[in-house]
Amino acid sequence: MTSSSINVAVIPGDGIGPEVITEAVKVLRAATAAADAELTLTDYKLGAEHWLTTGETLSEEVLDRLRSHDAILFGAVGAAPGDTRIPSGLIEREMLLKLRFSLDHYVNLRPSRLYPGVPSPLADPGEIDFVVVREGTEGPYVGNGGALRTGTPHEIATEVSVNTAHGVERVVRDAFRRASERPRKHLTLVHKHNVLVHAGHLWKRTVEAVAGEFPQVTHDYLHVDAAMIFLVTDPSRFDVIVTDNLFGDIITDLAAAVTGGIGLAASGNINMDRTAPSMFEPVHGSAPDIAGQQKADPTAAILSAALLLRHLGFSEQAERIEGAVENDVATRSGAPRTTAEIGDAIAAAVS
Amino acid sequence: MTSSSINVAVIPGDGIGPEVITEAVKVLRAATAAADAELTLTDYKLGAEHWLTTGETLSEEVLDRLRSHDAILFGAVGAAPGDTRIPSGLIEREMLLKLRFSLDHYVNLRPSRLYPGVPSPLADPGEIDFVVVREGTEGPYVGNGGALRTGTPHEIATEVSVNTAHGVERVVRDAFRRASERPRKHLTLVHKHNVLVHAGHLWKRTVEAVAGEFPQVTHDYLHVDAAMIFLVTDPSRFDVIVTDNLFGDIITDLAAAVTGGIGLAASGNINMDRTAPSMFEPVHGSAPDIAGQQKADPTAAILSAALLLRHLGFSEQAERIEGAVENDVATRSGAPRTTAEIGDAIAAAVS
Ligand SMILES: CC(C)[C@H](C(=O)O)[C@@H](O)C(=O)O
Ligand SMILES: CC(C)[C@H](C(=O)O)[C@@H](O)C(=O)O
Repeated sequence: MTSSSINVAVIPGDGIGPEVITEAVKVLRAATAAADAELTLTDYKLGAEHWLTTGETLSEEVLDRLRSHDAILFGAVGAAPGDTRIPSGLIEREMLLKLRFSLDHYVNLRPSRLYPGVPSPLADPGEIDFVVVREGTEGPYVGNGGALRTGTPHEIATEVSVNTAHGVERVVRDAFRRASERPRKHLTLVHKHNVLVHAGHLWKRTVEAVAGEFPQVTHDYLHVDAAMIFLVTDPSRFDVIVTDNLFGDIITDLAAAVTGGIGLAASGNINMDRTAPSMFEPVHGSAPDIAGQQKADPTAAILSAALLLRHLGFSEQAERIEGAVENDVATRSGAPRTTAEIGDAIAAAVS
Repeated sequence: MTSSSINVAVIPGDGIGPEVITEAVKVLRAATAAADAELTLTDYKLGAEHWLTTGETLSEEVLDRLRSHDAILFGAVGAAPGDTRIPSGLIEREMLLKLRFSLDHYVNLRPSRLYPGVPSPLADPGEIDFVVVREGTEGPYVGNGGALRTGTPHEIATEVSVNTAHGVERVVRDAFRRASERPRKHLTLVHKHNVLVHAGHLWKRTVEAVAGEFPQVTHDYLHVDAAMIFLVTDPSRFDVIVTDNLFGDIITDLAAAVTGGIGLAASGNINMDRTAPSMFEPVHGSAPDIAGQQKADPTAAILSAALLLRHLGFSEQAERIEGAVENDVATRSGAPRTTAEIGDAIAAAVS
C-alpha cells in the first residue's frame, strides 16, 4: 500500500463521548499506522459543556474549519436529562443536526449485525445482518412547523415532514447500490404510505423507478408498524432497509437493541457526493450517568472509526477493525473490562 | 344485575375479519346472555370487497346509521397487498380512519399484557402489563399535507402533523386517569421533543400541567427511539404509555409482538365524551393470505369485545372474558385449533 494521509476532525462531545472517542482514536492510529498512512487529528470542543462555557453551539466559522477535513469522528452530545440550564434538544438540533444538514449527510448508514457470541434480548434471534440506510437531510427533521397561541387552550403545534424527489432518489439509489453489493441483494422500503400518502407515494414511486436500474436486486415494502413486528420475530429477513429520517431513527434503535445493544451500534452520516466531509458516530448518546467511570463500551465508536476508514478508501483497515471487534465480542464474559481495556485489546489486534 | 340492552354495530370487513368477528360475536352473546342483557347486533358490509362491488367506502348515510348504536365491533379491512384494483390505503383512510375521526375516537386504547404461558420472542420478557393510550384524532394522521410537481424531478411532498392543546390535553388526562386506577400508577410520555420541538413541547407541557391533577401518579418521559430499546430489553418498566397517533401506531405493534403477537392484541377506539359510539377492533389486519381457512386467531377480536363490554359498563362480563382468555391461552399447545374451536372454547367458559 502506498503511503497516504488522512486528516480527521474529532468531536468528542459530552458525557461518555470523550472516553469512547479516546479508544476509537487509539484504534484508528493503530490501523492507519499498520497501513502506513499518515493520520492527522484535530480536536474540536463542541457540545453541551462547550455551550455552557461559551454560549456557542456551532458557529459558521467552526463549521467552515470542519469542512476542511477528510472526515469527522463524533462521540456523543447532550446534557444530563435533568440539567435545566440547557434548553432541551438545543445541542442536538443546533449542533448535531446542523452538522448533518449543513454537510449534506444524506445517507445515514446504520449496519445492524448480531456478532457471534453476543447475547440478544431475543430468544431465537437467528442470523442478523442488515443495514439501514436512513435518509439524513429531510423528513420530519427539517425543523419546519410551528406553534400558534402557545400556552393557551387554543394552541396548535405543527410539524412538517418535507420530502423531495431529489432527496429521496439519491438515498434510494444509494440503498439499491449497497444492496447490489451484498450477497442477498434485497431491499425493503419501510414507510407508512397508507396514511402518509404524499410522502409515502413519493418514496414508493422512487423505489419502483430506481429498481429498474438494479435488476439483480429484489425489493419489497413494509409499513413501519409491520416492520416493528418482523424486527423482533424475524430480523433475519432484512438485508437493506431504506427509510425516512424519523422512521430510520426509530428502527435503528430497535435494531441496535436486538443485535446486542447500542454499545455496539455504529453509524455513518455520509455525503456520498463528497462535497463535504462525512461524519461517523456511535448510535448511542452521551449517557451522563456513567460518564467518566470507564464503564462505557467503546465498541460502537470503534466500529464507527472502521466505517470512516472504509469511506476514505481504507477497506482493508476497516475489515481488520471489524474482525478484531468480532473476535473481541465473541470472548466477552467474566468481569467487565474498562473502556480503555477494551480499546487496548482491539487496538492491539489491528496493529 | 338488572336486565338491560346493548345495541352493537358489527363491521366484519375483509380477509380474516368475518371469521374472527364470528367468534367475537359468539363470545359477546354468551357474556351478555349470562348478564341477562339483551344484545342487538346489526351487520354493516364495509371494506375492500364492499368497495369493489359498490364503489362506496363509507357514506354519510351509513355513518349516520352507525352513530345510532351503542358501540361498534370491527374486524379488519384491507385488500391483499398485490391487489391493484384498490388504490393503496384508500379503505384504511376513507373507512377506518374516517370512522375514528368522525366519531371522535380520541383515545386509542391498546392494552399490552403477556399472558402467563404465552411465548414471547424475548428471551427474558419478565412480567409485561402496560397499556398504550394512543391519541386517535390528530398528529400525522390528519391528512394534511400535499405534493407539488408530482412525478417530476422537482417533486416536493409534505405531511403535516397537527397537534392541538384541546386534543393533547384530553388524551393526556385520560391516560393519567387510567394510570391513577392501576396499581403502579405510572405514566410515560413517549415523543421526540428534541427534534419535533413544537409538537413535542405541547405534549411535554401538557403532561406537566395535567400531572398536577394526579399527585398520586408518577411520570417520566422517553424519546421514541429510546422507548424502542426498553420495549425489548425491559418492557416491565411500562405501566401507562401516552403518545401521539403515529408513535402509538409504531409502539403498539412492537408491544403486540413482544407480548405474543398481534393474534392477541385488542384495541378500543374510544370517544370518552360519549358523543358518538366507540369502536373496538383487533390490532391485526385482514391477513388475506390466511383468510377463509379457519387459521386466524380470534383472541384479539374476542378481547376487543371484552373492551367493548367494559366501555358499556359491563365490567364483570369483560373480566369473565379476559379470565376465560387467560385460561385458554395458558393451555395452548399441541395441534392448532380452528378459529371456531378457539371461539367455542372461550364462549363456553363465559356462559
Ligand atoms: C440525538 C438525536 C437528534 C438523534 C436523532 O434523532 O437522529 C439520535 O437519536 C440519533 O439517532 O442519532
Ligand atoms: C390500517 C392503519 C390505517 C391503522 C393505523 O395506522 O392506525 C393500523 O395500523 C392500526 O394500528 O390500527
